Amino acid sequence: MKSALKGIKSHAFGLFNIKHHGKVRRKKPGEIPGTAIHTGVQKLDEVIINLHDFDEEHYHATTLKSIEKSEKYLKKETKTWIQVQGLHDIDRLRTIWDYFEMHPLIQEDIVSTSQRPKVEVYPNVVFVVLRAIMVDSKTGTLTSEQVSIVLGSNYVISFQESDNPIFEPIFRRLNTTGTRLRRYGPDYLMYALMDTVVDHYFVGLDLISEMIEATEENIVGNPNPSELHKIHALRRDLIIMRKSVWSLRDGINSLIRDDIPLISDDVKVFLRDVYDHVVQVIDSIETSREMVFSLYDMYMSSLSHRMNEVMKVLTMIATIFIPLTFIVGIYGMNFDPDASPYNMPELSWYYGYPLAMGLMVVITAGMIWYFYRKKWL
Amino acid sequence: MKSALKGIKSHAFGLFNIKHHGKVRRKKPGEIPGTAIHTGVQKLDEVIINLHDFDEEHYHATTLKSIEKSEKYLKKETKTWIQVQGLHDIDRLRTIWDYFEMHPLIQEDIVSTSQRPKVEVYPNVVFVVLRAIMVDSKTGTLTSEQVSIVLGSNYVISFQESDNPIFEPIFRRLNTTGTRLRRYGPDYLMYALMDTVVDHYFVGLDLISEMIEATEENIVGNPNPSELHKIHALRRDLIIMRKSVWSLRDGINSLIRDDIPLISDDVKVFLRDVYDHVVQVIDSIETSREMVFSLYDMYMSSLSHRMNEVMKVLTMIATIFIPLTFIVGIYGMNFDPDASPYNMPELSWYYGYPLAMGLMVVITAGMIWYFYRKKWL
Amino acid sequence: MKSALKGIKSHAFGLFNIKHHGKVRRKKPGEIPGTAIHTGVQKLDEVIINLHDFDEEHYHATTLKSIEKSEKYLKKETKTWIQVQGLHDIDRLRTIWDYFEMHPLIQEDIVSTSQRPKVEVYPNVVFVVLRAIMVDSKTGTLTSEQVSIVLGSNYVISFQESDNPIFEPIFRRLNTTGTRLRRYGPDYLMYALMDTVVDHYFVGLDLISEMIEATEENIVGNPNPSELHKIHALRRDLIIMRKSVWSLRDGINSLIRDDIPLISDDVKVFLRDVYDHVVQVIDSIETSREMVFSLYDMYMSSLSHRMNEVMKVLTMIATIFIPLTFIVGIYGMNFDPDASPYNMPELSWYYGYPLAMGLMVVITAGMIWYFYRKKWL
Amino acid sequence: MKSALKGIKSHAFGLFNIKHHGKVRRKKPGEIPGTAIHTGVQKLDEVIINLHDFDEEHYHATTLKSIEKSEKYLKKETKTWIQVQGLHDIDRLRTIWDYFEMHPLIQEDIVSTSQRPKVEVYPNVVFVVLRAIMVDSKTGTLTSEQVSIVLGSNYVISFQESDNPIFEPIFRRLNTTGTRLRRYGPDYLMYALMDTVVDHYFVGLDLISEMIEATEENIVGNPNPSELHKIHALRRDLIIMRKSVWSLRDGINSLIRDDIPLISDDVKVFLRDVYDHVVQVIDSIETSREMVFSLYDMYMSSLSHRMNEVMKVLTMIATIFIPLTFIVGIYGMNFDPDASPYNMPELSWYYGYPLAMGLMVVITAGMIWYFYRKKWL
Amino acid sequence: MKSALKGIKSHAFGLFNIKHHGKVRRKKPGEIPGTAIHTGVQKLDEVIINLHDFDEEHYHATTLKSIEKSEKYLKKETKTWIQVQGLHDIDRLRTIWDYFEMHPLIQEDIVSTSQRPKVEVYPNVVFVVLRAIMVDSKTGTLTSEQVSIVLGSNYVISFQESDNPIFEPIFRRLNTTGTRLRRYGPDYLMYALMDTVVDHYFVGLDLISEMIEATEENIVGNPNPSELHKIHALRRDLIIMRKSVWSLRDGINSLIRDDIPLISDDVKVFLRDVYDHVVQVIDSIETSREMVFSLYDMYMSSLSHRMNEVMKVLTMIATIFIPLTFIVGIYGMNFDPDASPYNMPELSWYYGYPLAMGLMVVITAGMIWYFYRKKWL
Repeated sequence: MKSALKGIKSHAFGLFNIKHHGKVRRKKPGEIPGTAIHTGVQKLDEVIINLHDFDEEHYHATTLKSIEKSEKYLKKETKTWIQVQGLHDIDRLRTIWDYFEMHPLIQEDIVSTSQRPKVEVYPNVVFVVLRAIMVDSKTGTLTSEQVSIVLGSNYVISFQESDNPIFEPIFRRLNTTGTRLRRYGPDYLMYALMDTVVDHYFVGLDLISEMIEATEENIVGNPNPSELHKIHALRRDLIIMRKSVWSLRDGINSLIRDDIPLISDDVKVFLRDVYDHVVQVIDSIETSREMVFSLYDMYMSSLSHRMNEVMKVLTMIATIFIPLTFIVGIYGMNFDPDASPYNMPELSWYYGYPLAMGLMVVITAGMIWYFYRKKWL
Repeated sequence: MKSALKGIKSHAFGLFNIKHHGKVRRKKPGEIPGTAIHTGVQKLDEVIINLHDFDEEHYHATTLKSIEKSEKYLKKETKTWIQVQGLHDIDRLRTIWDYFEMHPLIQEDIVSTSQRPKVEVYPNVVFVVLRAIMVDSKTGTLTSEQVSIVLGSNYVISFQESDNPIFEPIFRRLNTTGTRLRRYGPDYLMYALMDTVVDHYFVGLDLISEMIEATEENIVGNPNPSELHKIHALRRDLIIMRKSVWSLRDGINSLIRDDIPLISDDVKVFLRDVYDHVVQVIDSIETSREMVFSLYDMYMSSLSHRMNEVMKVLTMIATIFIPLTFIVGIYGMNFDPDASPYNMPELSWYYGYPLAMGLMVVITAGMIWYFYRKKWL
Repeated sequence: MKSALKGIKSHAFGLFNIKHHGKVRRKKPGEIPGTAIHTGVQKLDEVIINLHDFDEEHYHATTLKSIEKSEKYLKKETKTWIQVQGLHDIDRLRTIWDYFEMHPLIQEDIVSTSQRPKVEVYPNVVFVVLRAIMVDSKTGTLTSEQVSIVLGSNYVISFQESDNPIFEPIFRRLNTTGTRLRRYGPDYLMYALMDTVVDHYFVGLDLISEMIEATEENIVGNPNPSELHKIHALRRDLIIMRKSVWSLRDGINSLIRDDIPLISDDVKVFLRDVYDHVVQVIDSIETSREMVFSLYDMYMSSLSHRMNEVMKVLTMIATIFIPLTFIVGIYGMNFDPDASPYNMPELSWYYGYPLAMGLMVVITAGMIWYFYRKKWL
Repeated sequence: MKSALKGIKSHAFGLFNIKHHGKVRRKKPGEIPGTAIHTGVQKLDEVIINLHDFDEEHYHATTLKSIEKSEKYLKKETKTWIQVQGLHDIDRLRTIWDYFEMHPLIQEDIVSTSQRPKVEVYPNVVFVVLRAIMVDSKTGTLTSEQVSIVLGSNYVISFQESDNPIFEPIFRRLNTTGTRLRRYGPDYLMYALMDTVVDHYFVGLDLISEMIEATEENIVGNPNPSELHKIHALRRDLIIMRKSVWSLRDGINSLIRDDIPLISDDVKVFLRDVYDHVVQVIDSIETSREMVFSLYDMYMSSLSHRMNEVMKVLTMIATIFIPLTFIVGIYGMNFDPDASPYNMPELSWYYGYPLAMGLMVVITAGMIWYFYRKKWL
Repeated sequence: MKSALKGIKSHAFGLFNIKHHGKVRRKKPGEIPGTAIHTGVQKLDEVIINLHDFDEEHYHATTLKSIEKSEKYLKKETKTWIQVQGLHDIDRLRTIWDYFEMHPLIQEDIVSTSQRPKVEVYPNVVFVVLRAIMVDSKTGTLTSEQVSIVLGSNYVISFQESDNPIFEPIFRRLNTTGTRLRRYGPDYLMYALMDTVVDHYFVGLDLISEMIEATEENIVGNPNPSELHKIHALRRDLIIMRKSVWSLRDGINSLIRDDIPLISDDVKVFLRDVYDHVVQVIDSIETSREMVFSLYDMYMSSLSHRMNEVMKVLTMIATIFIPLTFIVGIYGMNFDPDASPYNMPELSWYYGYPLAMGLMVVITAGMIWYFYRKKWL
């Protein structure tokens, strides 16, 4: 985990590579709603369509050239998971959408990759949009991508932006006879996908917590503006994460509460568990945000404290030496001792110089005692 | 987009040209409610009345001299959109209001251009007030104007302050056979107008995000009061935008939830999409507001950091030179060496001057080492 | 409006003349509830009772010596408005209360002039307490007074603290045949009174907005404590205003929602409009409060910026002259050149003085270049 | 009231003498719930039991030796108020509790004197816990004590910590024939007790308002840490007060809304009035809290302003004298005029000294003009 | 209690030894939900299973080797409490879970020791997760551990991480004939366990209150960064505590409101009491948080005040001595008195030196008077 943290530090600032506005491609105002326009960055050369067909007895995984090839699997009584990776090729995606006769607004949402997470119930499908947040194992930073899930009567279709291996543990569980995934319906698969995405948030939050603690240590030692930048970036990242999870809570809640034929009561118990995790994530984000506010306060007071220290040094130097300099100035005056016996007779005293030096030692000692009493030393 | 940003910078401060109070013309307290008084600025020479008549087969657009000319279109089974531009000529508008027998409170709201957005259901019409926020392509700043929509059984009447081309994409879609606009009823047209207005918010938010990022960069480099002014202006602009959208959310929600005969279930699915967008806009505004708060914190701490830097320089200079000046002062004293062997015999030493200089070099070196240890260098 | 603003400035600080606690007379704890005790300041010599009697055909206004004189008007089928001005003479007021058999708690609320605004429904009357906020045309400051309205089946009784002309526009409308005031029932009159009071809030808010803008300009130019006082006063005034409106919202809402026989559905549409205005006032107050918080932030950062400027000047002066003073100090030392060739031979060099001066010019130039690079100049 | 304020100032800080945690005696974790343990300080020598028996015709007050003596009063159809003062003697109290067969949790709450205010409805009694806040007439500070009220079918039992005369006005009203207290049932007596307690909050709030205003004046004149302490204490006191009232609101609200046989509809109208007062108290506390936050801001900016003033003086002194000191330093150098004509020939000029002095006057004038332009003077 | 406080001070900072993220072992994303993985630290050598069997007549406590030994007790009509201590040995725990056929999600939650507190109702058991916070009597710091309770028809099973003696008072009460614990059902036992855990929060809050008060005193005396660290730690600890209690409130509330056959109405009255305590704990946490915010403000203003003091000293020293040093500099100039009568004739005056000294005394006195007037002394 150490290396991940180092990754963060070398990285500009902020966990996400998001210029979260400005460069976003978007449906232009006034264009036909339900127009599918991919608003993200192309992350794959071409769209990959994986198919997982399974029931209690068997499991079969394959990659499809065209969506029509899925027909023989969908016709069977088995459960089918079609995993689509890559959202840049609208024409290819449209073959899938048309094949399953998806509502235009679902199509628009799948490729608009800056959607708020949401759960929407259509007459014969359930549509879920999630934002997956993962730690990139190479750079140690966080990346995020949109995951959309369409749940039908005997199939689940998932859409991802890249071939990120986030769902690999699911493959392993599918490949194991007797797991709940194999026994339960497609609604349980949808749950498993959602659970996986939500579990990844905890990993992201751990990374952020580490960064907060690292920043905290730096701030006290040496409060400099780069720490301030990190605080600012953490603040922004946490706001982005919160946006990603907040609306999910209500969505999952409505899945649990509402009477949706596609989702069985057994699975609802598990969805309640996901709901619990989402609430826990929100709690942790709030906690982290408070800690970041606290970091800012620490930064400001560290700055003030440093300033105080600097001022104390300056004041001590000045307070000690300015009177001394005044005294030596006096005896640098050129009053003519010959003109009058009142004109600086000290200069001709036998112990004049030692006495002057002694006076200055006494003043210095007095000052130091004064500073000691004021607790400046 | 670069030029837009430049436009902003050259502009005084703040995205809106709003002196949002004080100069507002208003119904005087106690005056008859439902009195139509135009509270905005005249933006057009005269009121323009465009009429768009359409159904699945045909589309016809024309400009009307008087509202009575619309009768032949309204009588047909086709759907009619009357687009009124310019709100300064109350007498002209009253001919329209009277023709459609609008409630006095609707009349008052159409011309009171500082209304909160709202959705109101009257016995036989639905009345929607929106605030459109657009990027002015010439100045690169934001402008805003009030858009009111009255939905009747087979017509939509829209009222705008100016001839702003915000709805031009709608014209194009109306002119295309087979679009949902042509197939669906007037409720879908109302939805399309609302959707267009809401989509424009995203463009405005992108502009604000760019400004926040530009300000952020400036602040760290050189925190000066003009940046503070920009922060203050951003804060105000975001509050104004929030006010414009917040109340819209509840309004659209009631359109979806309530049982309104004028709005079909098919259109409600689309209104749910607008609702989603409005919530997303509110989210983004909140995010931007938090970022602006964070900007202020950065500004303050940048100022403090600068002050610290200045103080460190001052303290170093003073700490190094004040003791040295004291020493040279000592040897500038005029104690009479003839009067006593104790009176500054150093002055007559063979290596007196080099020794004094050496002492000062040592002190300076010690100081620099001290600052180095304190990390001030 | 300029003069109004000037009025504010000359005025101590704060828009209200309120010492809002401390001097308040109150029912003592434990005293009989429903005890009518006037808690405000006497603003009139004696209680004035105006009566307005009207229906669609006629309108008659008169001033009553005693409340019994109103009997003949109340008996008729016309609508009657009894306007009571002055709350200090409990005995006189009691004749009115007894005549209309008002509940003791209504009596107490009418004369307790620091009531929260509220709407209460009693078996056969509706009781409304409002706080009117008006701009005093003489001083340009805000004054406030409590307005209570009792709505019965065919009458409205209003209680005010002073003879403030706030309701004069209503008189004019009553005097005009064919207005809704004349045609509708007493519930519409109650609405008209409420609407007038609420509309006055906008005038007050405009004044506050002007003050905020004026303060904003002053702060940047010259942040001094009197501006801070104004900010503090604005903060307090806005809190007071918010308290005055907040509870009104729920009250009016309950008038609209609940099934109250005294209020007709036609008037409810208008009350919905007042409700809208109240919400708009609350919005504006919140906006103003945020702007005032922002003002405080600006004040603090202006102070910090000024401090920075002062520190930079000090540091530049010190940084330039302290080393120079050190150098001139060196050549002021009295080392005996006769005692040794090492003792300050520079003093006897042919170009000693010009060289020393040149050295100092070089140091100064270096410093200035350094400050330029640091952007302190 | 002046003396009260003085009392506060001489007093340490903060209105309450509360070390609100730490010294609190409490039921140990795991002990039997419903265990009555007095958690407060003993304020009386022994428990006093006063009995007030009354109906419309007569009123009788007496002090009981033992609770059994109350039997003859309770058997009658009259209403009985048993006022218990002193909570330290659990054994004595238990005789009362057992006599009335109170629920163990009621017993525990009566003597746990750090209870949150609450209203609880048991099968045949209503149990109310209040926190009374009173101004101590001797010290001018606030004291608080817990008041519990048990309402039965024909009796009210009140428990207080001390013999504080808070309910004396009630005695007087009981002693007056024809008052509502005499005519209404025991529910009205409970209301009267609650009303008295709530009315005392206003007196406490007035005291706090006075303190806020006094502190405000002090802060601007002379911001020193003792003022900061007062702000801190006010902040704490207001939080404590808010805790005391907040939960009361919901409790009273449930008394009004719920269908409780022991409370008649007539009394509910009066409870609505208490509810209103509680909401008003909460409002005032929130207002006061905001004012205290504002005080802190004023304190901080007063400090900053003072610092600015100090810095300006320092900078002016330094800016004026440092260059002058440099100049006099120059002419204190000992370059040998005999060695070269370039070595400070000014020293031998006829007007050398006056010219040097004139130069310094000119520099000083220039500085002052500069400061004047910068508005530092 | 003094020693406890000392314990805290010697301790790093913060009451909890929690590195609350980062080192947490967790179910990996995508793993089978309901997988029991112990996420905490092993606190015991082996899992201990204590059994308490009791009814109104008898009480029997024993330690079980294996869970099957509990069969004879469970079969009887008596109530049985199985207390499991230690969560690290999943295999051992699984024998218990399998014996009672617990839902996989219950299993997961029992050993995931960073659960949010929650109350979940399964078809035939009630499952409660609590976070116990206790003062460690040795170190004086707070420790926390998760306590899970499973309530069945005639048994209660509790799971703890360690053999912490938190429930010992319950043993004593079980051992006493006639207590409610013996008389009531297992639901009362569950209540008693929850009550014990909640009561411990108060002890923790007392400790935090003491720390706040101690920190407050330190801050005013000597604001240094270690106090700031304590404030930061307190802030974090309070956020953690709040998370521990907040969700408990809703959970208990649902136990009271919902119709759960396993919980009798008699026990619900007691659960209402726990609910009350939880609300009181939340209140106290909020109060403490506000006090900690206030502490931070005090810290910052103490720093500012100190800075002010330092600056005043510096300014006074500089303001007094800089002019004096200038004067003595003047009379150190070497203008040639022989060259002109204008060249510093003062140096040869008879009273030149005394006059110069006198001038300086006058200037010093003037300065001191100035400072006195400015209230700097």
